Amino acid sequence: MRPSSSPSDGLLSGLSGSPEVDAELDDHALLRALLDAEAALARAGADAGVVPAPAADAIVTACHPDRYDPAALGRAADAAGNPVVPLVREVTAAVPAPARPWVHLGATSQDILDTGLSLLAVRALGALRRHLDAAVDAAARLADTHRDTVLVARTLGQQAAPTTFGLKAAGWLTGLAQAGDRLRQAGDGQPAQLGGAVGTLAALGPAGPDVAARFAAHLGLPASALPWHTRRQPRLDLAAALGGLLVATGKIALDVGLLAQTEVGEVAEGGAGRGSSSAMPHKRNPVDAILVGAAARRGPGLVATLFAAAVQEHERAAGGWHAEWEPLRDLLHLAGGASARCARLLAGLRVDPARMRANLDATGGRVLAEAVAARLAPAVGRDVAHDLVARAAAAPAFRAALLADPEIRAHLSGTEVDEALDPDRWLGSAGRFVDAALAAARGAGP
Amino acid sequence: MRPSSSPSDGLLSGLSGSPEVDAELDDHALLRALLDAEAALARAGADAGVVPAPAADAIVTACHPDRYDPAALGRAADAAGNPVVPLVREVTAAVPAPARPWVHLGATSQDILDTGLSLLAVRALGALRRHLDAAVDAAARLADTHRDTVLVARTLGQQAAPTTFGLKAAGWLTGLAQAGDRLRQAGDGQPAQLGGAVGTLAALGPAGPDVAARFAAHLGLPASALPWHTRRQPRLDLAAALGGLLVATGKIALDVGLLAQTEVGEVAEGGAGRGSSSAMPHKRNPVDAILVGAAARRGPGLVATLFAAAVQEHERAAGGWHAEWEPLRDLLHLAGGASARCARLLAGLRVDPARMRANLDATGGRVLAEAVAARLAPAVGRDVAHDLVARAAAAPAFRAALLADPEIRAHLSGTEVDEALDPDRWLGSAGRFVDAALAAARGAGP
Amino acid sequence: MRPSSSPSDGLLSGLSGSPEVDAELDDHALLRALLDAEAALARAGADAGVVPAPAADAIVTACHPDRYDPAALGRAADAAGNPVVPLVREVTAAVPAPARPWVHLGATSQDILDTGLSLLAVRALGALRRHLDAAVDAAARLADTHRDTVLVARTLGQQAAPTTFGLKAAGWLTGLAQAGDRLRQAGDGQPAQLGGAVGTLAALGPAGPDVAARFAAHLGLPASALPWHTRRQPRLDLAAALGGLLVATGKIALDVGLLAQTEVGEVAEGGAGRGSSSAMPHKRNPVDAILVGAAARRGPGLVATLFAAAVQEHERAAGGWHAEWEPLRDLLHLAGGASARCARLLAGLRVDPARMRANLDATGGRVLAEAVAARLAPAVGRDVAHDLVARAAAAPAFRAALLADPEIRAHLSGTEVDEALDPDRWLGSAGRFVDAALAAARGAGP
Amino acid sequence: MRPSSSPSDGLLSGLSGSPEVDAELDDHALLRALLDAEAALARAGADAGVVPAPAADAIVTACHPDRYDPAALGRAADAAGNPVVPLVREVTAAVPAPARPWVHLGATSQDILDTGLSLLAVRALGALRRHLDAAVDAAARLADTHRDTVLVARTLGQQAAPTTFGLKAAGWLTGLAQAGDRLRQAGDGQPAQLGGAVGTLAALGPAGPDVAARFAAHLGLPASALPWHTRRQPRLDLAAALGGLLVATGKIALDVGLLAQTEVGEVAEGGAGRGSSSAMPHKRNPVDAILVGAAARRGPGLVATLFAAAVQEHERAAGGWHAEWEPLRDLLHLAGGASARCARLLAGLRVDPARMRANLDATGGRVLAEAVAARLAPAVGRDVAHDLVARAAAAPAFRAALLADPEIRAHLSGTEVDEALDPDRWLGSAGRFVDAALAAARGAGP
Repeated sequence: MRPSSSPSDGLLSGLSGSPEVDAELDDHALLRALLDAEAALARAGADAGVVPAPAADAIVTACHPDRYDPAALGRAADAAGNPVVPLVREVTAAVPAPARPWVHLGATSQDILDTGLSLLAVRALGALRRHLDAAVDAAARLADTHRDTVLVARTLGQQAAPTTFGLKAAGWLTGLAQAGDRLRQAGDGQPAQLGGAVGTLAALGPAGPDVAARFAAHLGLPASALPWHTRRQPRLDLAAALGGLLVATGKIALDVGLLAQTEVGEVAEGGAGRGSSSAMPHKRNPVDAILVGAAARRGPGLVATLFAAAVQEHERAAGGWHAEWEPLRDLLHLAGGASARCARLLAGLRVDPARMRANLDATGGRVLAEAVAARLAPAVGRDVAHDLVARAAAAPAFRAALLADPEIRAHLSGTEVDEALDPDRWLGSAGRFVDAALAAARGAGP
Repeated sequence: MRPSSSPSDGLLSGLSGSPEVDAELDDHALLRALLDAEAALARAGADAGVVPAPAADAIVTACHPDRYDPAALGRAADAAGNPVVPLVREVTAAVPAPARPWVHLGATSQDILDTGLSLLAVRALGALRRHLDAAVDAAARLADTHRDTVLVARTLGQQAAPTTFGLKAAGWLTGLAQAGDRLRQAGDGQPAQLGGAVGTLAALGPAGPDVAARFAAHLGLPASALPWHTRRQPRLDLAAALGGLLVATGKIALDVGLLAQTEVGEVAEGGAGRGSSSAMPHKRNPVDAILVGAAARRGPGLVATLFAAAVQEHERAAGGWHAEWEPLRDLLHLAGGASARCARLLAGLRVDPARMRANLDATGGRVLAEAVAARLAPAVGRDVAHDLVARAAAAPAFRAALLADPEIRAHLSGTEVDEALDPDRWLGSAGRFVDAALAAARGAGP
Repeated sequence: MRPSSSPSDGLLSGLSGSPEVDAELDDHALLRALLDAEAALARAGADAGVVPAPAADAIVTACHPDRYDPAALGRAADAAGNPVVPLVREVTAAVPAPARPWVHLGATSQDILDTGLSLLAVRALGALRRHLDAAVDAAARLADTHRDTVLVARTLGQQAAPTTFGLKAAGWLTGLAQAGDRLRQAGDGQPAQLGGAVGTLAALGPAGPDVAARFAAHLGLPASALPWHTRRQPRLDLAAALGGLLVATGKIALDVGLLAQTEVGEVAEGGAGRGSSSAMPHKRNPVDAILVGAAARRGPGLVATLFAAAVQEHERAAGGWHAEWEPLRDLLHLAGGASARCARLLAGLRVDPARMRANLDATGGRVLAEAVAARLAPAVGRDVAHDLVARAAAAPAFRAALLADPEIRAHLSGTEVDEALDPDRWLGSAGRFVDAALAAARGAGP
Repeated sequence: MRPSSSPSDGLLSGLSGSPEVDAELDDHALLRALLDAEAALARAGADAGVVPAPAADAIVTACHPDRYDPAALGRAADAAGNPVVPLVREVTAAVPAPARPWVHLGATSQDILDTGLSLLAVRALGALRRHLDAAVDAAARLADTHRDTVLVARTLGQQAAPTTFGLKAAGWLTGLAQAGDRLRQAGDGQPAQLGGAVGTLAALGPAGPDVAARFAAHLGLPASALPWHTRRQPRLDLAAALGGLLVATGKIALDVGLLAQTEVGEVAEGGAGRGSSSAMPHKRNPVDAILVGAAARRGPGLVATLFAAAVQEHERAAGGWHAEWEPLRDLLHLAGGASARCARLLAGLRVDPARMRANLDATGGRVLAEAVAARLAPAVGRDVAHDLVARAAAAPAFRAALLADPEIRAHLSGTEVDEALDPDRWLGSAGRFVDAALAAARGAGP
């Protein structure tokens, strides 16, 4: 039986995650995080003088994940309702008798599990960040390379007017960068938790806040001014940031999927051998875009679950807290997979400028209708200009109709009509926007 | 994420699931369901005369889950975006050469995965049903035993008026029974899927619908009149039914948690040794109620995900379909765990009628204020009656104030006041409602 | 927020709703429904002999919505937390003194509001049903008209193989019909509520159940065997059915939006003058598809809210119940708007079979690759056939490459190749599926 | 008919909103915001030299909300799919002919609606902030006043150990303050939008970015480095912050509702006349807590909707964008109502220290079991200490059993037992945590 702790090669879960991130999320990683918390607690106690140093040393030694069986702990968790209770029992049994009273000193199960999940998140975000940085780099490269590659913008599903693929990629880049900012901030804000049974740290006496501060410092996590057992804002921040990353990657996947449609064909996923169909030999499915899009569809429900679970009563909650654990891991898992696939997708993306140009030209210049109208408006007013151009757009051949219309030609020469129909002259500030996005991305650099 | 292949003993996932249901949901079970679908397809083809019988026999033989490695298939799935592509490749390799052209004949990956997940759901629901039946039985037993056990009803969080614990349990029973009805209906409606690459069954020629019907029959699943590749109503039905079961169990858990509060103490979970606290020796946490409540908090987000994913484009969807798989398993997993724990909770529930009576009496009869007012109203009008009783309720001793109020005593004798203050006389139709609920539950029986 | 009393002409809410359905949902309609409930209660009481007939008559007379000001009631609701408390006060003031004690007899606010919202839903569903029937008819007409109109099926965003527009429309039809079935069932299951303060009907004495049955009968609503104050399955059924309808209409909108893309152009919305763009004279946006799609995006969150709110404690809930009211109206509002726009969209849809054929042909027959491979497979095996065809598909001209390949030509004549490349010969059971869908829709008819 | 633009007195919507915030959200306010955006666009154009000053002046004059009818605009919006198209038409008609070409120059409907909703949000947040500040002040006052008021902490629904009401209120305070921080940050980040038809600002020529910057400056909104038509991170930030505020207020409401239970009775809502029951004269429902709790239940679904809608394709989206408008208003509406009611609830909260003490004492000192065990542990080890104390806790009288147990008395004198049972000696760092929370709140002050 495959252990429960390696979701990245599950029959389905491998498709939604990334091996690198999942390695920081599985049951072994969680067990390690919980034990790191117990070890840090012992160390902090020793530093603060409330735990004898030899006891702390013994506890630290015992807090090694290979000594414990996650599956057995999982089964034993049922009686207590969380896995920390049996874990503490086993750690206590693993240390010499004199050290036993000092195991888990002053803590409640939630302290260890909240802290462990903060650690888990920070570690998973480290791996995720590498995927995300790669995606950002690839998006920046696309924006730079294709700064002036013209394609038609689509609005409300219809061809609208020219833009550049560089600007499209700059939008992707900015989306990833903004999501990355939120994620960094949220990751930096996942605190250690130490409040004891009811959030007063009573069992640590006057040393409580000192132990709590040292505990957090040992783990490299921020300390919280007061326990946050039923005040879950840090988890909401993380959920929203992960949800936002799924949106940013999902938007890219959606665009790529649409641009890769057979009838559009402006981009294709790279990756030899991926996306082939057994039944249809001609087909190449944009697999990464599809799986990133699937992850994006799952984000909102998980974000909602974490917000719903965050309304927690009294000093420690019955149910709301328990409902957080798995959805938080799910979100990290999905965001990891989406980031990894998005990076691969962007790095390998095949861009077809000729097809972009052909699609732009397919409507005979009608996507420049606004440009023609803009040239006419100063002379005839905007409404009249709009109507004149719309009339031409309804004719079989747009350019010919423009050139043949005396009301238009009264104000525009043939050259002016052709200039208006030149997409390169109707790109507005696209280039400057690309430059700004690239500058911002570089400014946010390492 | 919920670990894929052995969720019932994960460090966290064991707390949200049930071993019996999870055994029907794990990767091994999914692999078996996918292979059952492939085998049924071969059989159906043979029956319909489009697959040679020896080829079908060879395929059926090869469709045994122990021959394949879910983890390897999971990894290989990445290139195709679903696990059926590598599975078909492996099954094809596993059969003698003459049988190979007949493997997966006429089907697309989605046919197998949709059908496999229908099978998985039906099997998991079988196990879940046993938990749910046990919960229904236990609720019925409570309703029957405590048909006339008086306790105070709480509305909007406040003590309101007398009711019976039997009626409370009858409400639980009815909720479970109604959710069970929806679940039975939804389970019966999970169809086999066979549409081929684009839903026309082109590769099966004129035999298509015949093969599809036989395919479903072999699996014991309903056939669909036309393929439902992008019409996901059956999954919505299932999601809503599972979500409804999480609501029904969650309501019980919420009630039990509130009734088990130290200050209320009217019920306690059974189960020796469960729910004890390492830090606080006096404490007994209602662990099952807590975990059922946690599951209930996760239902709505997963239901929403399945509804969001169900808007699927064209003939087979990019992303929406892929987003269904894991949330569907998650919902089955959670509903299984909630049902099992709810059954255990109800079967072991310790009911304290004396404490119920003490709580009812704690306000000195004020919870019968409506009863007193109702006796006064015919004489003095409802508003005056309300005000007279409210005035007495504001006095230190309610009964004494009633007896001392000449305006009240003008219409009610001391005996009548005491009759009005007798909770057993203000239970209305509670007993009849209990009887109706029990009769309905028995009528729905096996 | 969706404005309460005239949502159909709000600055934004008109875009998400339908005037016909919204007229049954606004504050005036709600007030009417609440008063209908109060009137029915008085009538039921009179029938059962617990309310004097003249009092009942007076109450019924007073229960006319024009006598009350929803805005004033809304403001007065703040102190009580629901609008029924001030409404009962006003109704009581409006009847002659002798009738006053009989107003609202035996009921609690929730009885009236639950019943009123059941009525509101049933009435709104009546209006919605007319939109939905029109949509079903229009979809059936499309399926019938285009039973044999060939277009290319798209799977995972890519052109895949031929199908018919009739089958696509048959899928829409079936989706609408299935959603309509759920909605009918859910609508028929919205019960009257009468339980009194705590669900025992104590204030009605032995007449309770009789009054409750008559109350429901007067309103044309089903009675509930026992009060459902905190057992919200009927609302979950309704939420899921409305959510399902938003999925079914959303799928149509998604397909139409994709088929209407400039590069695809196979359908366009009718409706002269709709969807034009002020800035871009050439543009025609598929406005109905867009707005139906917008509604579809809002369904899952509202469904989730109703499931989350349904976990309600004790005899009557603090908060969960209150959280239902507006989301339920929102869902009815959105489903109404989506149905109306979907009906208009389908009825006016312009279908372009020539463009469909052109798109199908655009890949030079590659969408028939599966058909060619299927003809080769019996001779060379499926894998070899797949590879041979894939090689030809990678050549510049597919048909030429097929004809030039000696390995292929060893098994297929030129005529056979061309037959394989004929989309009309690779439609499988599309026509039969259309016929089945039409027959089912007609069978479900009036 | 009540106009659609004043939801605060709807029959139901008044219960979920606040009049002050709703006044900034209604259709009149939205119309004003849209017109402010059009006026700022004209001004910015004039400043940048692309719009004649007199034209700009005329446009600014015409951009007054009283000149337009929201209901008529709402109806006219149907053809275009958004209300800006008819509004621009009407504004254009309202200005002198020479100014007409300059109305809406360079903008697309989405520019105006996105910017208008940013303005709307900022203005609504201004009103909301006043409620929130009042809530923060009230929470701080409670924390300060009750810094040392002892009550029993409840964990997992059970009495656990002593804490202070000050620490509970400090947690509320911190939750509100943290949510307020997120809200301030999110509010400050709602940008102006100006991208023109496809996000290139083509129609403004080289002046585009300059106009965009001036446009934002005129409105007091941040400018975006590049258009964010389909990059919705600012809206996600706002949704998450509003959702977080609903969590923070919901947690307070949940605690208050539980503490106000008849059996607990430690707090009660103030507000004479609120929360009375028509049927039950003795009852006082915690109405504000109930309605705040109802709002909290609706947050997650709306947050999810905004995250789901944020995955938007291409340059401007079909449906995703349209799905944002009403949920965003709904969230602001609900957060406004929750803040207002939370402020009122906290300001009027009646705290009963005597009842708190009585509840703490009700278990005969068992909630100090951990304290006793902690005193024993150094001598006998933690496990033995736990078991000794648990044995005493199971006896009828805890203190007597402790004093009578020779194994305990071997290590603890009677005085030491009584000291261990003194709740004031087992408050740990509660006071210091309160001080820290108050200091942080004051530090964040004006």
